[in-house]
Amino acid sequence: MKSRAAVAFAPGEPLQLVEIDVAPPKKGEVLVKIDFTSVCHTDAFTLSGDDPEGVFPAVLGHEGGGTVVEVGEGVTTVAPGDHVIPLYTAECGECKFCKSGKTNLCSAVRETQGKGLMPDGTTRFSYQGKPVYHYMGTSTFSEYTIISEISLAKINPAAPLDKVCLLGCGVTTGLGAVDHTAKVEPGSTVAVFGLGAIGLAVIQGAVKARAGRIIAIDLNEDKFTLAREMGATDFLNPSKFDQPIQEIIIEMTDGGVDYSFECIGNVDVMRSALECCHKGWGESIIIGVAGAGKEIHTRPFQLVTGRVWRGSAFGGVKGRTELPGMVEEAMNGKIQLDPFITHRMPFDEINQAFDLLHSGESIRTVLSYEKE
Amino acid sequence: MKSRAAVAFAPGEPLQLVEIDVAPPKKGEVLVKIDFTSVCHTDAFTLSGDDPEGVFPAVLGHEGGGTVVEVGEGVTTVAPGDHVIPLYTAECGECKFCKSGKTNLCSAVRETQGKGLMPDGTTRFSYQGKPVYHYMGTSTFSEYTIISEISLAKINPAAPLDKVCLLGCGVTTGLGAVDHTAKVEPGSTVAVFGLGAIGLAVIQGAVKARAGRIIAIDLNEDKFTLAREMGATDFLNPSKFDQPIQEIIIEMTDGGVDYSFECIGNVDVMRSALECCHKGWGESIIIGVAGAGKEIHTRPFQLVTGRVWRGSAFGGVKGRTELPGMVEEAMNGKIQLDPFITHRMPFDEINQAFDLLHSGESIRTVLSYEKE
Repeated sequence: MKSRAAVAFAPGEPLQLVEIDVAPPKKGEVLVKIDFTSVCHTDAFTLSGDDPEGVFPAVLGHEGGGTVVEVGEGVTTVAPGDHVIPLYTAECGECKFCKSGKTNLCSAVRETQGKGLMPDGTTRFSYQGKPVYHYMGTSTFSEYTIISEISLAKINPAAPLDKVCLLGCGVTTGLGAVDHTAKVEPGSTVAVFGLGAIGLAVIQGAVKARAGRIIAIDLNEDKFTLAREMGATDFLNPSKFDQPIQEIIIEMTDGGVDYSFECIGNVDVMRSALECCHKGWGESIIIGVAGAGKEIHTRPFQLVTGRVWRGSAFGGVKGRTELPGMVEEAMNGKIQLDPFITHRMPFDEINQAFDLLHSGESIRTVLSYEKE
Repeated sequence: MKSRAAVAFAPGEPLQLVEIDVAPPKKGEVLVKIDFTSVCHTDAFTLSGDDPEGVFPAVLGHEGGGTVVEVGEGVTTVAPGDHVIPLYTAECGECKFCKSGKTNLCSAVRETQGKGLMPDGTTRFSYQGKPVYHYMGTSTFSEYTIISEISLAKINPAAPLDKVCLLGCGVTTGLGAVDHTAKVEPGSTVAVFGLGAIGLAVIQGAVKARAGRIIAIDLNEDKFTLAREMGATDFLNPSKFDQPIQEIIIEMTDGGVDYSFECIGNVDVMRSALECCHKGWGESIIIGVAGAGKEIHTRPFQLVTGRVWRGSAFGGVKGRTELPGMVEEAMNGKIQLDPFITHRMPFDEINQAFDLLHSGESIRTVLSYEKE
């Protein structure tokens, strides 16, 4: 079938709005009509060419919400008409990782997904007869897309897809990093580095966890307004201090924070985030994705004296078993999605959404595939 | 009073056996007669001059066992005749750290201890009228030493001091890193880098925790014999492989180990120890003390994909509340100390004990202050 899509033909170039061909779903696959998608920094990172795993041409996009149109052979857990959120972190329930009970990093489709292919090693997208690659197993920048059954969270059909689509990446990542990865306790002191969608979601998560103090850190002070509305209690612009920001935080917290979160992808900030943690028990969670070849570093003494360095992917959330519950929370107000949506526009204006993201003006732009 | 002591007068030089003067215990202090002490790599590290915190002249030594001779004003928890193990990690029970329930890193005497002084900022040792510094709050290389009350574990007087003195550092550090810091579960796969006293204690701890597989790693294959006797199941000499050792371990364990322990103090080995951990849940514990200015590094992706980087000091063990129980375990055979004691000699031969440690011939040499 034909589908409207924004294709990344080459790194560093704007997406091109074209009509691509989408082949029918094979065994274990599902044809999904995407109703809403948003743009995340990871899409921009891959489009820039800096992502060493990036393949072109590809249909990017991994934060979306849609409706099942058709299922391939053997698909039993979703049916046409079901509302779904695509998952870039699959959940097969059967691999060593899923069975461990210790991680959400399912290995079932990882290898092919990283190459822009479906699990059988081929692609369902083509343009003018030439293959176009998938992306993160989701490719939400095509109105019709093919997704593995195990990469779909079936959600309450009453949930507003134009909002809960945000649970496909950034918001879930931040909330999950707080309650799944760090397990922040009431009264904790928390530092959040970087106030994009993930950082704001961490703040929201910390408020839910009843943290006592939430320190928001960003070079762009315009971001403090929304961070304050989300519930942050303290605000720091590192460029305003001569000392390293970790020293400032240690001073203002009498020894350091209980938990810190790096939501940028900058290895120097990752060091600050670790070193602002309290001796004896402070834990730092890396969420941001660093550039190729970049390394974190610190003195091992930082760890020997009790700090813990962790990371989190998709907030440690298991997409199929846990995301539907988070959708319910969004419906009953326990998770707030509206503050993240700073812009809305038709899908065809997707390159403008990338521009807003790059300039720092937007948190999330929700793109609609509906024709005006 | 006069006391036999081995004084480190200058970095890089052998200890000098002299008679020093020991002032009486002040408020909160205790005069302890050391009966047995052993030599640990940390003593050698400080003596070498590489320890940026090292002060000279000093009475080194931090692994020992002795008897209380006299107590200063206000001391209530020990009395003359009590058997004690000196603690380089104090436990005041009242500071933020002790009260947290999350760490053994008591802050009560830390600052003065790091400077080689008693808590009032002065020293109780002198030689020919000139001050001699303390070390790690313990200074077990003097037959009579002054130790803070909060830096003494009172133990069962029936325990053999010539063996349980080893619980003052290395053995406790290794055992504690397994059950306090890592909390190794039955069936786990464990990698141990470096087979000195701490590495061997980690192996013993892993056996106690019923680990399923214990991989012992050292460049010196002579160490494999004792590691095997302790219960290690696999043995690797990294110099025998062209690939990085973490890749070998990942292959032989189908993805990596559940827990790894760095027991050397080499930042490159710390990286290998982290990277040999299983994606999704593997945890690496740094125990070794690195040289001044050395930094650990890795790609943040290692953490984002679920590995955890921790450290451990004195095995996370609280000296006054937990060490007495470990002494009981040593008495009833649940902790084995004999395998660590490869040499015994009179205190006066202490420089020979350092030589044996440097050459890798000894695990622990127990020195006796008894006159022949």
